[in-house]
Amino acid sequence: MSSLHVLTGAAGFIGSHLSDALLARGDAVIGIDDLSLGTLRNVEDASLSPRFALYEGDVNDVERASAAITAAAATRPIDTLWHLAANSDIQAGVADPDVDLNRTFLTTYSAVQLCRRHGIRRVVFASTSAVYGELPGPLAEHAGPLFPISNYGAMKLASEAALTAATTGTLDAVAIARFPNVVGPRSTHGVLHDFLAKLAATPDRLVVLGDGTQEKPYVHVSDLVRGLLFIRYGIDEKIACYNLGDGRTSTSVAEIARLVIERRSPGAAIEYTGGNRGWAGDVPRFQYDCSRIHARGWQPSMTSTEAIARAIDELVAEGAAAGRS
Amino acid sequence: MSSLHVLTGAAGFIGSHLSDALLARGDAVIGIDDLSLGTLRNVEDASLSPRFALYEGDVNDVERASAAITAAAATRPIDTLWHLAANSDIQAGVADPDVDLNRTFLTTYSAVQLCRRHGIRRVVFASTSAVYGELPGPLAEHAGPLFPISNYGAMKLASEAALTAATTGTLDAVAIARFPNVVGPRSTHGVLHDFLAKLAATPDRLVVLGDGTQEKPYVHVSDLVRGLLFIRYGIDEKIACYNLGDGRTSTSVAEIARLVIERRSPGAAIEYTGGNRGWAGDVPRFQYDCSRIHARGWQPSMTSTEAIARAIDELVAEGAAAGRS
Repeated sequence: MSSLHVLTGAAGFIGSHLSDALLARGDAVIGIDDLSLGTLRNVEDASLSPRFALYEGDVNDVERASAAITAAAATRPIDTLWHLAANSDIQAGVADPDVDLNRTFLTTYSAVQLCRRHGIRRVVFASTSAVYGELPGPLAEHAGPLFPISNYGAMKLASEAALTAATTGTLDAVAIARFPNVVGPRSTHGVLHDFLAKLAATPDRLVVLGDGTQEKPYVHVSDLVRGLLFIRYGIDEKIACYNLGDGRTSTSVAEIARLVIERRSPGAAIEYTGGNRGWAGDVPRFQYDCSRIHARGWQPSMTSTEAIARAIDELVAEGAAAGRS
Repeated sequence: MSSLHVLTGAAGFIGSHLSDALLARGDAVIGIDDLSLGTLRNVEDASLSPRFALYEGDVNDVERASAAITAAAATRPIDTLWHLAANSDIQAGVADPDVDLNRTFLTTYSAVQLCRRHGIRRVVFASTSAVYGELPGPLAEHAGPLFPISNYGAMKLASEAALTAATTGTLDAVAIARFPNVVGPRSTHGVLHDFLAKLAATPDRLVVLGDGTQEKPYVHVSDLVRGLLFIRYGIDEKIACYNLGDGRTSTSVAEIARLVIERRSPGAAIEYTGGNRGWAGDVPRFQYDCSRIHARGWQPSMTSTEAIARAIDELVAEGAAAGRS
């Protein structure tokens, strides 16, 4: 008999890809998504499977979410709760801290309550490089002190702490996957969206926040989902905390602008607004030490810039399919 | 003109000593305390000063707390918000995680909201060695990864993160003082209370949880309050994070039992329940690296065991004064 997975944020960018991957394993998924960033369209394919069910509601409405899990768990044992629900839009949390409190931290707190109610003993959590704040040097998992500079990063770190504390009682194991920037189909926001939207409005020029030197590692969502499955099934630790990425490559904003223009609006001019930071709460550049997960046997298949290039083409195709281009 | 301090947890164990110290500087204090652990008796002396006012209510009731601050700030500029309100009883949070969520983390979130409303640009925060979880080796401020094993430690780490993120906008500076175990007059719970209560009930024997080998550093509240003032006025950093303690000495549970018996019930027998951990969420022993604050010029005046011995005598005197002995 296949296992059941509880997946918060199941209709979101990364969550919907993970839904697809868990179904492809032959398992069943009860997704929980309030559709604030996620969409039913993201789970159109998943919904064709009799092993997929979606509870459209807030994970913080623990009573209703719990009832949905009870119904889904009637015929299958629960393997893991994958907690991906969050406000993934850092800038939205800068404008209103309540967004990150409610949707990034309190959803984690609610997820632990669901585990306690349903006897779920394993959680995989979508964390982030933003927990490191602006630490100098390559960021390894043991780096400290951790002083996040965005509410997003703060509420992700708070979530990690709530989960690790839960391993003294409610949980047997928690896996914390610290994501770099993730790109690919079904993404909802970010630099690629911004640039594509700007070029759609003014095809001859692209205004870029900052000076273009901000440089970060990107990973493609297809690689990331493989990494999440690896951290769950390839590593057996009470608290498994791993950076996910290739640890070598990154991509500058100037390079991203060049790639988007090349693919979407050849010949457009780039105008930089100046400064080395796009917006408050942004960590302008960092090096990601991923040697621990590599030593365990997982690597992404694409470099940062390969992931970006592929994601641009995918987003353009999505836009065309949605009649947005 | 003297400055005004906003002090959450002002009627609590440590908060009431800090109230006294701030008043002794000639400053004014608007205390916020819901009297869940704090008592009016703790601020009897402070209340004699015209520079002290207490808002008896929950800091999470931001509207009412804000009104109290507005009234107090009419005649003086606000210097600092000292955030000491918390559930300081780790075991209470093990039984019910909501206690730490509401009283340890959400009070911090509310404190940041109060800073935003009132233009308060500096916070000093009472953090804890519990953020380190069970990391091996001497615990320095940059140690990681941080996996707290109690909800108390988790919600303190979450609070640190919320405060550091606030330095990108709301705050100019935050000081994070990571306390070891603190003892002294007006304390509300802990091993000294447990032992004194047990000996009051059965003067001839003392049942001790664990095997007595748990060993931790203790600091006396009088030293700790000096440390808090030092971190606020002796250090000028955007994010000042310091362990407070002597970094050399600690005291075993067996030694504490011996000291309590010697002072309170000479000749009583000690019975150990066994095991190296008193209760879930307890970190049984740790070494505290306090070299950074020492290098800055602050040291406690008492060793760990001197602090314990003095605190026992003070608690016995308090109990006698309250007719409890």
